Amino acid sequence: NFTQGVHTVTLIPGDGIGPEISNAIMKIFEAAKAPIQWEERNVTAIKGPGGRWMIPPEAKESMDKSKIGLKGPLKTPIAAGHPSMNLLLRKTFDLYANVRPCVSIEGYKTPYDDVNLVTIRENTEGEYSGIEHVIVDGVVQSIKLITENASKRIAEYAFEYARNNQRASVTAVHKANIMRMSDGLFLRKCREVAENFKDIKFTEMYLDTVCLNMVQDPTQFDVLVMPNLYGDILSDLCAGLIGGLGVTPSGNIGANGVAIFESVHGTAPDIAGMDLANPTALLLSAVMMLRHMGLHGHAKKIETACFDTIRDKKVLTKDLGGNSKCSEFTNEICRRVQDMD
Amino acid sequence: NFTQGVHTVTLIPGDGIGPEISNAIMKIFEAAKAPIQWEERNVTAIKGPGGRWMIPPEAKESMDKSKIGLKGPLKTPIAAGHPSMNLLLRKTFDLYANVRPCVSIEGYKTPYDDVNLVTIRENTEGEYSGIEHVIVDGVVQSIKLITENASKRIAEYAFEYARNNQRASVTAVHKANIMRMSDGLFLRKCREVAENFKDIKFTEMYLDTVCLNMVQDPTQFDVLVMPNLYGDILSDLCAGLIGGLGVTPSGNIGANGVAIFESVHGTAPDIAGMDLANPTALLLSAVMMLRHMGLHGHAKKIETACFDTIRDKKVLTKDLGGNSKCSEFTNEICRRVQDMD
Ligand SMILES: CC(C)[C@H](C(=O)O)[C@@H](O)C(=O)O
Ligand SMILES: CC(C)[C@H](C(=O)O)[C@@H](O)C(=O)O
Repeated sequence: NFTQGVHTVTLIPGDGIGPEISNAIMKIFEAAKAPIQWEERNVTAIKGPGGRWMIPPEAKESMDKSKIGLKGPLKTPIAAGHPSMNLLLRKTFDLYANVRPCVSIEGYKTPYDDVNLVTIRENTEGEYSGIEHVIVDGVVQSIKLITENASKRIAEYAFEYARNNQRASVTAVHKANIMRMSDGLFLRKCREVAENFKDIKFTEMYLDTVCLNMVQDPTQFDVLVMPNLYGDILSDLCAGLIGGLGVTPSGNIGANGVAIFESVHGTAPDIAGMDLANPTALLLSAVMMLRHMGLHGHAKKIETACFDTIRDKKVLTKDLGGNSKCSEFTNEICRRVQDMD
Repeated sequence: NFTQGVHTVTLIPGDGIGPEISNAIMKIFEAAKAPIQWEERNVTAIKGPGGRWMIPPEAKESMDKSKIGLKGPLKTPIAAGHPSMNLLLRKTFDLYANVRPCVSIEGYKTPYDDVNLVTIRENTEGEYSGIEHVIVDGVVQSIKLITENASKRIAEYAFEYARNNQRASVTAVHKANIMRMSDGLFLRKCREVAENFKDIKFTEMYLDTVCLNMVQDPTQFDVLVMPNLYGDILSDLCAGLIGGLGVTPSGNIGANGVAIFESVHGTAPDIAGMDLANPTALLLSAVMMLRHMGLHGHAKKIETACFDTIRDKKVLTKDLGGNSKCSEFTNEICRRVQDMD
């Protein structure tokens, strides 16, 4: 229960522009009087006993306690042989659902209007199992692992998400015409779970058909649920429809309320430290975080201030089509937040 | 060598609207005096010795002789346990490259202008290997198989295609950050082959990044080469950018000039036999076929007549935004072809 008192959130500022956009979020949260106390942690992986990569104990302990993280971009991989920190975080905290709402932003023009969908990606298995072999010289196999438990869990998450967010339908995205057993299992679990959510419409579609229809008319989609790799692809595709990773929030959700919210854009080393970065994706991820914590009032206030600033077009960072600095954009959002009081 | 004399092409009209759009193509080819003789064959799979599905011997023999096929849509699968005919044809004739040029059609409005790219998909292995197992109850694995030979062969095809079609660059699309060994092998082969094509620019991109960039600005892409499943997805996505499967041609290419060209849209049973179907995708596939055979003059003539008809907007089928019948659209193209003489 996060609705009373002050709550600690683990803040992972990240690399490149990470620290400055994290600062922007802290400033805006302060202006909005959000009841959040930040606990800053570094997550650069270290080698634990037995040579296994792990996140540093201080970061792990903070997350274990706070249950909630906000994370900027991480360079990945930072060196050959080094694991992807994004993957390691998902694994460490069993963040099994990646959730990306893709909603058109008024005033930020793309070829599409009225996009309003959510991709829900299974985040722990599938093509990301990491099992590969050389069979004989020149012949390699990668194993895609699909389990009943993970499929059921993500399907349930998707339907509950739909119900809790007043969404009308869930579409399972698959290639069970080709991967009859693995995608077949995933699909079967979706069908079974759908039986318990008669208030939500359930449909099934091939991944290729979804991609084709998506670029022709994204407004036909609502909540989409799918295995890991398909989610990797489709979540980025959908982000592209509304303006890219610079404006798209993302959340990685685990059991018992544990979650890490993150911007999924790069570290933009070329502009790091120059006060030019756009904090929107991280801010909207932080808004998702507030909603996840039940802090709907603060979420709405910050989100409105952010969207109003973008719609107004007067104070925008370069990538959004303006020529303001990160700090100016941030201040403008703070001003609007304070004006709402 | 197809540039002299009359050539036999195996025609597989297909199901649903297949026969009427095939008729349209034959009519237009006749008007253009294309030196093609059609050998019509049915390809509904039969059970051969040992219970293996195979295409009927008359179809196989015709293709073995003619080397070139033109194919309308097939219902797939026609019954439970029945194989996908599309997959069976690719396998039977080892059609290892699926080639889809996606070029914006003047006068046919979509959210994108000036798309001009080609997807080249490895058509024989990868996630389509068909190897799957139940490990224990509730745990399934699907095997993705990547071989050196198939990767090298498709990479070579892509670079040769680029060179022969005056294209400047080839992009290898992969997820070697996740599937290090399998996609890693595919990528390594692309890099090696690139060394022999110094006149063609070579780049590498993650599939998710390609999808995101594709919907933001498809004009940045040229020739894209990728493993089977990624090609399935990306080729449909790109078709969506220019207007969908009703206007997108496709070719499946094998060794020694063997090839089957096909429209990849559905059989549209709801309008079958009603003279309402749009033959454009099959016609443009037939134009690809003529080019493949070296019949560039006939190809150009038919393609121009088709695009002029669409740009002119006076005689269009319903799905193209008009209210003409398939036969009227076909006659208009014939008229324009004959006017060029
Ligand atoms: C960084 C990379 C390992 C990751 C993935 O492929 O899942 C990324 O693309 C993502 O979507 O979070
Ligand atoms: C019909 C189906 C088996 C096929 C595939 O998945 O490859 C189709 O989507 C295609 O792209 O030709």
